Amino acid sequence: MVSFESDYTKGAHPKILQRLAESNLEPMPGYGMDFYCRRATEKIRAACGCPEADVYYLAGGTQANAVVISSMLRGYEGVVSAQTGHINVHEAGAIEATGHKVLALPEPNLGLDAAPGMPVEHLGQDAGSGPVLPMGSSGQGSGKQLLFQGQKGKINAGELEKYLQGFYQDSSHGHMVFPGMVYVSHPTEYGTLYQKSELEGIGEVCRKYGLPLYLDGARLGYGLMSRENELSLPDIARICDVFYIGGTKVGALCGEAVVFPRDNAPKHFMTTVKQHGALLAKGRLLGVQFDALFTDGLYWELSRHAIEMAEQLKKILRETGCTFYLESPTNQQFILLEDSRLEELEQHVAVSF
Amino acid sequence: MVSFESDYTKGAHPKILQRLAESNLEPMPGYGMDFYCRRATEKIRAACGCPEADVYYLAGGTQANAVVISSMLRGYEGVVSAQTGHINVHEAGAIEATGHKVLALPEPNLGLDAAPGMPVEHLGQDAGSGPVLPMGSSGQGSGKQLLFQGQKGKINAGELEKYLQGFYQDSSHGHMVFPGMVYVSHPTEYGTLYQKSELEGIGEVCRKYGLPLYLDGARLGYGLMSRENELSLPDIARICDVFYIGGTKVGALCGEAVVFPRDNAPKHFMTTVKQHGALLAKGRLLGVQFDALFTDGLYWELSRHAIEMAEQLKKILRETGCTFYLESPTNQQFILLEDSRLEELEQHVAVSF
Amino acid sequence: MVSFESDYTKGAHPKILQRLAESNLEPMPGYGMDFYCRRATEKIRAACGCPEADVYYLAGGTQANAVVISSMLRGYEGVVSAQTGHINVHEAGAIEATGHKVLALPEPNLGLDAAPGMPVEHLGQDAGSGPVLPMGSSGQGSGKQLLFQGQKGKINAGELEKYLQGFYQDSSHGHMVFPGMVYVSHPTEYGTLYQKSELEGIGEVCRKYGLPLYLDGARLGYGLMSRENELSLPDIARICDVFYIGGTKVGALCGEAVVFPRDNAPKHFMTTVKQHGALLAKGRLLGVQFDALFTDGLYWELSRHAIEMAEQLKKILRETGCTFYLESPTNQQFILLEDSRLEELEQHVAVSF
Amino acid sequence: MVSFESDYTKGAHPKILQRLAESNLEPMPGYGMDFYCRRATEKIRAACGCPEADVYYLAGGTQANAVVISSMLRGYEGVVSAQTGHINVHEAGAIEATGHKVLALPEPNLGLDAAPGMPVEHLGQDAGSGPVLPMGSSGQGSGKQLLFQGQKGKINAGELEKYLQGFYQDSSHGHMVFPGMVYVSHPTEYGTLYQKSELEGIGEVCRKYGLPLYLDGARLGYGLMSRENELSLPDIARICDVFYIGGTKVGALCGEAVVFPRDNAPKHFMTTVKQHGALLAKGRLLGVQFDALFTDGLYWELSRHAIEMAEQLKKILRETGCTFYLESPTNQQFILLEDSRLEELEQHVAVSF
Repeated sequence: MVSFESDYTKGAHPKILQRLAESNLEPMPGYGMDFYCRRATEKIRAACGCPEADVYYLAGGTQANAVVISSMLRGYEGVVSAQTGHINVHEAGAIEATGHKVLALPEPNLGLDAAPGMPVEHLGQDAGSGPVLPMGSSGQGSGKQLLFQGQKGKINAGELEKYLQGFYQDSSHGHMVFPGMVYVSHPTEYGTLYQKSELEGIGEVCRKYGLPLYLDGARLGYGLMSRENELSLPDIARICDVFYIGGTKVGALCGEAVVFPRDNAPKHFMTTVKQHGALLAKGRLLGVQFDALFTDGLYWELSRHAIEMAEQLKKILRETGCTFYLESPTNQQFILLEDSRLEELEQHVAVSF
Repeated sequence: MVSFESDYTKGAHPKILQRLAESNLEPMPGYGMDFYCRRATEKIRAACGCPEADVYYLAGGTQANAVVISSMLRGYEGVVSAQTGHINVHEAGAIEATGHKVLALPEPNLGLDAAPGMPVEHLGQDAGSGPVLPMGSSGQGSGKQLLFQGQKGKINAGELEKYLQGFYQDSSHGHMVFPGMVYVSHPTEYGTLYQKSELEGIGEVCRKYGLPLYLDGARLGYGLMSRENELSLPDIARICDVFYIGGTKVGALCGEAVVFPRDNAPKHFMTTVKQHGALLAKGRLLGVQFDALFTDGLYWELSRHAIEMAEQLKKILRETGCTFYLESPTNQQFILLEDSRLEELEQHVAVSF
Repeated sequence: MVSFESDYTKGAHPKILQRLAESNLEPMPGYGMDFYCRRATEKIRAACGCPEADVYYLAGGTQANAVVISSMLRGYEGVVSAQTGHINVHEAGAIEATGHKVLALPEPNLGLDAAPGMPVEHLGQDAGSGPVLPMGSSGQGSGKQLLFQGQKGKINAGELEKYLQGFYQDSSHGHMVFPGMVYVSHPTEYGTLYQKSELEGIGEVCRKYGLPLYLDGARLGYGLMSRENELSLPDIARICDVFYIGGTKVGALCGEAVVFPRDNAPKHFMTTVKQHGALLAKGRLLGVQFDALFTDGLYWELSRHAIEMAEQLKKILRETGCTFYLESPTNQQFILLEDSRLEELEQHVAVSF
Repeated sequence: MVSFESDYTKGAHPKILQRLAESNLEPMPGYGMDFYCRRATEKIRAACGCPEADVYYLAGGTQANAVVISSMLRGYEGVVSAQTGHINVHEAGAIEATGHKVLALPEPNLGLDAAPGMPVEHLGQDAGSGPVLPMGSSGQGSGKQLLFQGQKGKINAGELEKYLQGFYQDSSHGHMVFPGMVYVSHPTEYGTLYQKSELEGIGEVCRKYGLPLYLDGARLGYGLMSRENELSLPDIARICDVFYIGGTKVGALCGEAVVFPRDNAPKHFMTTVKQHGALLAKGRLLGVQFDALFTDGLYWELSRHAIEMAEQLKKILRETGCTFYLESPTNQQFILLEDSRLEELEQHVAVSF
């Protein structure tokens, strides 16, 4: 049966498995102090144009988000996120479990009745290497056509500044959670991308208000290889204060590389990683994989391939008359189907919502 | 100078001070084990029609909210609240600091661009014994007239059920924060009141989904003494699983009485209170005050007086041509003024926004 | 019945009640922004010789400890305390509830089988205005005589430095909780006092390792008025980075004054106080009391009185042949009794363990 | 260079890598819902003699400890552990970060000046496939001979009961952290093993006091394959309420299998796992590995091999005159060396402390 589910239904890229096998018997120190972690870090520094960058390898994305965010916020601060951000919806309260509020910004002008803090639609959040079909039951009838929504899942520099201004003008803000950091993802939960000027605008607002900017790159490879993408890894490293390069959903067995581009990791960050249970004893597992991904452009190659496959599928589906929930430029594609047609389809392919 | 600021600008009702003085030299055990706490509890049980109720005395409202909510939620659960709820906006993240998300429900049909999780207006949230004047700078021009908004600050049984249904229908809800409790306040942040049928409707939805219902009664006396109020203390005790009777803003120096109406306090609740730093060594301070408040109907008498004063003021202000932000039936009144007129006024009276 | 229980069995000093009554109808802003809080702060600054000090008023001691400690530690740090410290034993895990470990230092050379992290004896921890009788069942037979134990409840500069040295020499310390602050109390849980040189020694070690020193002064007045005391309030302000002056157990209805002697309160400390539910709406309740306590030396006068009463009692008890658990120089006195004699006594007086 | 460091210096057992490669292209659902996780669970159930067991796969041990412990404790409870327990010393405060105290029991009768909560020696805590050499600087001179210490790192049923009895007899225990769970490891941090009667004794005390018993099996395979071991997997499943079977240090790339032997996992445990960032998107990585480990007795085979190698080394070292810190029956061996000899040795082999 053909699977149109997500980009983590298979194992790893064969080259990664090969490198794990080849290095398997080399003795190495634990906890990320090994040769491969160091070499992967050198390669990531080069790819980011940041010779000073601190790089840490964590097993998963929710973990990376919780560790990075909680280590950079003070007790009275929260993290600003799009209302539909992964940290606000699909991480089971991981940020709040560290004691911090997610300060959800509404989506700009979507013409939808979005429930604040509680987006009415969670469809396709994990869509991946193939297109994904939206749930018929999430508040909008199947088959309902929506216009292009390039802003879906994003925050907007203007809205961000308006919120920050309003916060400090509010005479009771001393009784409220202070904004302490801004979280974006690229691509977003909906596969949309920030234009270069958009991310720069957000970065400027952040600097103006002294807030670090954090970019969740769970699917960063697919974003950067999209035809519509305007951002490079060095751009991201320049604009953001911290970001992670996703491995789990881009060809690795597991693993995300957290990058502090200007030697700006919080003090004793490794201990914080340990405290969150996020420090692998055999850190080599992550080092070897990222070393392989950043050798001979493997990370970009496999990302580009996924984008091309998605474009082909999108073309075929469109020719057969399919309509899309939004015009996603990445490998996350959301198709609108009549319920009856969906049932029929499910007899032949695996889909997710 | 006349003060129109809030209901906590003065000290306590004189009878309370008198009782503190009279009992001052009686030796008593600490931590709420004293005679006055026990006697206040008997009186509150009688007033609620709940001979089995557990009653605990805490120093303040944010404390009461954090202790009650965190002691009743499991780790993977959050508390459902109106977007404008005190716990979601004006408690500096006290709930999140205990590890739990506030699941903010949007306000129903207000025709305002409310920023989710971050209401654009916080005006008058602490309004009190006199009327309060709204801030001219919070996104809507001074003088702008708004229609009656009896739903302001409330949640709605229908919206609540829709959210709960949607949550369990969402195939990815295992990755989301589970709703574990429902929080309402009566009166709300905006001085509005739940009708009896509205609160009963919410209670039914809560029972259907196995969620405890918690009512924040920081200004409960004013709510119950409002001419438009339909709810009695026994009604609240019957419909809710836990609530608190506010003292700080209703004539006491400090103190809130948390009531578990059916002997249903969480196990070792006193230890949880202690852990939150909310257990006063001289618990008598709260016992004596609540004993006085529930003797000879003092709590109701002083609440009724505040409501009558507010009604008189409302009448006078309306006759002089004032417009109101909303038609509040309690002692929280929000008046809309031109900025110029406000400046003039501030030379004669103290106001708050 | 005569009560020998503790120093919080009565209400407040009459002058405090009088000042509350006199100021009762003056309208004042909430949350500690009132005239009396400001005036009390001026008086406390003068008493400490610290014109720059930040002073905050909180309702109770456990609260003060949790708020101060959690606001000054980073996520990967814990607080060093004597094993018998109040925060390690009798605060129901308030520090851990904020996410931080209490790093318990053992008591130096007590010749007792002290269970680490879990002192076998908790007797008399709240002893007060009169002497207190130890529990016959806590691991040491009633009537057993113990030698003078001036070190009981204290930490020691040498032991502290040994621990800190050992920590940084341990090659696996990156996997351990970092010491981030040092907590002492004066007097301690056992009524013992730090000599000036002892506290200075601890202060030096703290500065050497970059750790703030925090002094819990729940019963500070009694400590400073003891005949054996060598420390003044300015000494404490000079040696420590933060401390609190206890009110609840020294004549107030409730309240502790947290002092940051060098304008060194953590950023937005008021918001942190609010987040912990420790910000009283009617902050005047604390302001008026501390203003009264620091007017005409009331705080010192009532502390001295308690010490004198304790000395008289100690003398009488000793003359009648009583033995003491330790030679406490403050108002906490621990008497050793045969179980039979205790039972007899309990028919005439109220005691605590 | 020969490495005597630890049991996580190499990658995985070759059969594990082979199975990962063979299954690599099979599409599977994420988050542990795949075929291999299910099949591994069946095999683990069989090995434990628990057809009803719930099994969850987490990436690492600190993670497993934090997730299991925090999900089973109520807010006012802590976890009882040996003072030298991994959770008390080498997990960077992971348990406290979830809001809970580690209630450290002292080591019984070791004749050492153990610093409570802060063991003076942390040597060899991660020792592994080869012997390990102790640090010369940790409070005991190099070359100092110690007697057999079969109790090192363990707790004792008698001591546990004494503590629990004392806790409930203490009249102030309502102000203290309640014991809510008991944590042991097998083998311990020091390579020592519980005798069957010892673990059964602890289990009885736990049942008497209503406390779940949790066994950390980071190196469970080595423990169970030791010549001196008396416990089987079904014994552990019968005596304990939850335990984990370590993979990371027993031949896997990463991964621990948490077993709730009687279908007794906390409600929505998967969501709790997600909240802690401990849920791998490609859960297959753990499923395939544990499926391989529990196929044809691979887990036992490679554990037995490590034990045999350790025994050979121990014999050789003893013949050459080496002395041991303690008589460890597992693959963790701690050798005492003069500092000079250690320096010499380090030129030829890699060691750890």
